[in-house]
Amino acid sequence: MSAPTEPERLARVALACAAEPGDPRIGLLTHRFGGVGLLERLEAEQVDSDVLKDLQERLDEVDATRELELGARLGARFVIPGDDEWPSQIDDLGTAGHVQARGGPPLGLWARGPMRLDELAGSVAMVGSRVTTSYGEEVTRQIGAGLAVARRPVVSGLAFGIDVHAHRGALAGDGRTAAVLACGVDRAYPDAHAALHDHLVRHHLVLSEAPLGAAPMRMRFLARNRLIAALARGTVVVEAAIRSGALNTANWTARLSRPLMGVPGPVTSVSSEGIHELIRSGAATLVTRAGDVLELVSASGTHVAEVRRAPAEPPDRLRPRERQVLDAVPVSTPAGPESIARACGIALLDVQHTLLRLGRHGLVRESERGWRLADGRSG
Amino acid sequence: MSAPTEPERLARVALACAAEPGDPRIGLLTHRFGGVGLLERLEAEQVDSDVLKDLQERLDEVDATRELELGARLGARFVIPGDDEWPSQIDDLGTAGHVQARGGPPLGLWARGPMRLDELAGSVAMVGSRVTTSYGEEVTRQIGAGLAVARRPVVSGLAFGIDVHAHRGALAGDGRTAAVLACGVDRAYPDAHAALHDHLVRHHLVLSEAPLGAAPMRMRFLARNRLIAALARGTVVVEAAIRSGALNTANWTARLSRPLMGVPGPVTSVSSEGIHELIRSGAATLVTRAGDVLELVSASGTHVAEVRRAPAEPPDRLRPRERQVLDAVPVSTPAGPESIARACGIALLDVQHTLLRLGRHGLVRESERGWRLADGRSG
Repeated sequence: MSAPTEPERLARVALACAAEPGDPRIGLLTHRFGGVGLLERLEAEQVDSDVLKDLQERLDEVDATRELELGARLGARFVIPGDDEWPSQIDDLGTAGHVQARGGPPLGLWARGPMRLDELAGSVAMVGSRVTTSYGEEVTRQIGAGLAVARRPVVSGLAFGIDVHAHRGALAGDGRTAAVLACGVDRAYPDAHAALHDHLVRHHLVLSEAPLGAAPMRMRFLARNRLIAALARGTVVVEAAIRSGALNTANWTARLSRPLMGVPGPVTSVSSEGIHELIRSGAATLVTRAGDVLELVSASGTHVAEVRRAPAEPPDRLRPRERQVLDAVPVSTPAGPESIARACGIALLDVQHTLLRLGRHGLVRESERGWRLADGRSG
Repeated sequence: MSAPTEPERLARVALACAAEPGDPRIGLLTHRFGGVGLLERLEAEQVDSDVLKDLQERLDEVDATRELELGARLGARFVIPGDDEWPSQIDDLGTAGHVQARGGPPLGLWARGPMRLDELAGSVAMVGSRVTTSYGEEVTRQIGAGLAVARRPVVSGLAFGIDVHAHRGALAGDGRTAAVLACGVDRAYPDAHAALHDHLVRHHLVLSEAPLGAAPMRMRFLARNRLIAALARGTVVVEAAIRSGALNTANWTARLSRPLMGVPGPVTSVSSEGIHELIRSGAATLVTRAGDVLELVSASGTHVAEVRRAPAEPPDRLRPRERQVLDAVPVSTPAGPESIARACGIALLDVQHTLLRLGRHGLVRESERGWRLADGRSG
C-alpha cells in the first residue's frame, strides 16, 4: 500500500468524528472506497440512505483540519492504513464479522506516546474483570512482567482490575505496554488511573479510535475490546466472572483465530468461573505463567515451554535391580531381607547389598524389626 | 461366562498368594488359561522358566482353603471372573499394557463389605495428593458429595489427603464409596484411617488384590492405582503436584480410554501444578463441580451440564431501541439527551422517553448535567 495522502487522512478524521467507533457499516465502506472515496459517494448520495442520514448532518459540523491541529497540540497523531507504523494485523477485523452491532476495521487510530503502532505486531493482550482478587492481580503482574522480559509488549485497557495490573506488570518487567481506550486519547478514564495514563503517554502508547474528547460509553467499550483482540497476537484472560466484559474480548480473539488463553483459579472463586468455562469448553488453553503464553503466541517451534518436571530424585537414577528391591520395601511396618527378597524375586545376598546401598541414598531405613521406606516415599 | 467352580476359586487364591499384585505375566497367563489351567501348566513345567521359578516354590507354601476360611472369618470374600458381582469393566486391563512393570487384570479381588462389586459399574474415582490444601480438601468433599447425591459411587484409596476427603464427601452425600487398598483387606493403612476403614467394611466396600496380611509397599500402590482407574467409569484428580502418585492413576485412566478430569486451582499452588499440566496438554478435561463430572461420565446426552450463565438482568430483556439508547449513555460524565440522541442516531423525543424508561429500570441515572449509566454498568 502506498503512503496515504493528506486528503485521505483528513477524510478519515472527519468520518471518525461523525461515526460511532466500530460502526461496521462505515468501517467496511471506508475500507472499500477509502475515506475520500466514501465522502465523494456520500456527497453524490450513492450510499445506503440510512448511512447517509446518520452521517451527513454530523459531517457538516466536523472540521478535520482543526481536529488534527488539536491533536498535534496534545502530541496525538491520527494513524491510518498505509502509514509506516500502521499495525496491519488489525486489518483482520475486515472479515471477523460483528458482535453486538460492533465490528469492522477502524477508520484510523488516534495515538499518543513514543511507541510505534507496528511494535505491537508481537504483543499479547491481557484482560479480565474489573473486580479482582489479590490472587488474580498478583498472577497478572507476574505474567505481564514475564512477557515484558521476553520483549513482548502488553496490550490492555487501563481499566480497574486486571487491566491496570497487566500494564503495571509490563512496566515492572521493564517492557512496553499500550492502553487502548473507549474514550478519546485526551481523556483519562477512570480518573484513578490518570497518573498511569500520563506515564503511558510519555513513555509508551495510548490508543483510541474514538475522536478527541469522546466520553466512554458502553458501546465504545464493546468497540474498543475488538481492537485489543485485533492488535495482539493472542489474548490472556486472567479473572472473569460469567458476565465479564473480558469475555467480549475473548470472543473477538476467537473470531480472529488468534490464541485465546485462560489462567485458572480456585473453582470456589466466582472471579474464575468465566475462565474455567472457556477452558472446559475448549475455547481457551490453560496457561499458568508467561512461558506457557510465549509458547502459544510464538511461531511454531521458536519458543517451547519446558515441560514441568520435578528435579531428578534418587529413585530416577537407580539401576533396575535397585528399583525392584526398593519397590518391595514396606511403607510402614518393617520387613526382614528374606521377606523383601521373596517379594521381589531376587536372591537374598543381592537384596541385602542393595538395601544397604538404598539406605545410603536415604531411600530406606533399617530398624530392629527390618527395613521400611524412608518417610514420604510411598505411592 | 458360566459361574466359576470352587477349584477355580481355590486356584486363583493360591496364585494370588504366590504372585505379586499386578504382575502382568501371571495376570495374563491366568486370564488365558484360567487358574486351574495355569496350575496344571506350572505342574507340567509348560510355562516360561522365569515364571516357574518365581511361583513354584511359593505355591508349595500356600494353603488356599485355609486362606478362604481365614477370609470368611473376617467377612472377606474372594471374587473372581464369572461371579455374579464381578466388575467386568476391570477386564479392560487385559489390553491396557504395563506401567512401571505393573499391569494386566487382577486374578481376583478380596472384598469386605455389603456393597456388591458390580455396583461400581457407574462409579467415579477421585484421587490426588497426600499433601493437600484446605481448598483441595473442601472441593473434594463437595464433588464427592455431589456424585453421591447423583447415585454415583466414589472409588478412592483411603490414603491421606484427597483420598480420605473423597470417601468422606460420598458419605456426607449419603452415597456409596469403595476403598481399594495396596495392602490386605484385613489391614488398615494408614493407621489414622482405621475407623473409616471399619466403617467402609461394615457399610460399604473395601477391596484389594493383595492377599490377606499383605503389607503396603510401593510396588503394590502402583498395582492398586490401576485397579482404581479400571473400576471407575472416569477419574477426577483434584490436587497433584508434578510428582504425585495420583498421576500414575491418571495415566492408567488415559490408557483405559476413560474420561480423565482435573480440578484446577491457583497457579501459585504447587499442589495444582500436576493438574494444570494435564489440562494444558489436553490429557484431562477441566471440571469445577459434580455436574461437570456427571456430564463426562454419563452416556452421551443423558446428563448435560447446564451452561453457566448469570441470571437474566434487565439489559437482556430490553427492546433493540432501548438497548441502542443505553449503549450511548456515558459511563461517567453525564450527557444531555441531545448528545445521546446524536450518538445513537435516534430522534430526540424517542430518546427522552427511552431514557425515562431506562431510569425506571435502574439502568441510567439523571443529574443536573444530564444522564449517565447507573454504577457498575460499563463494559
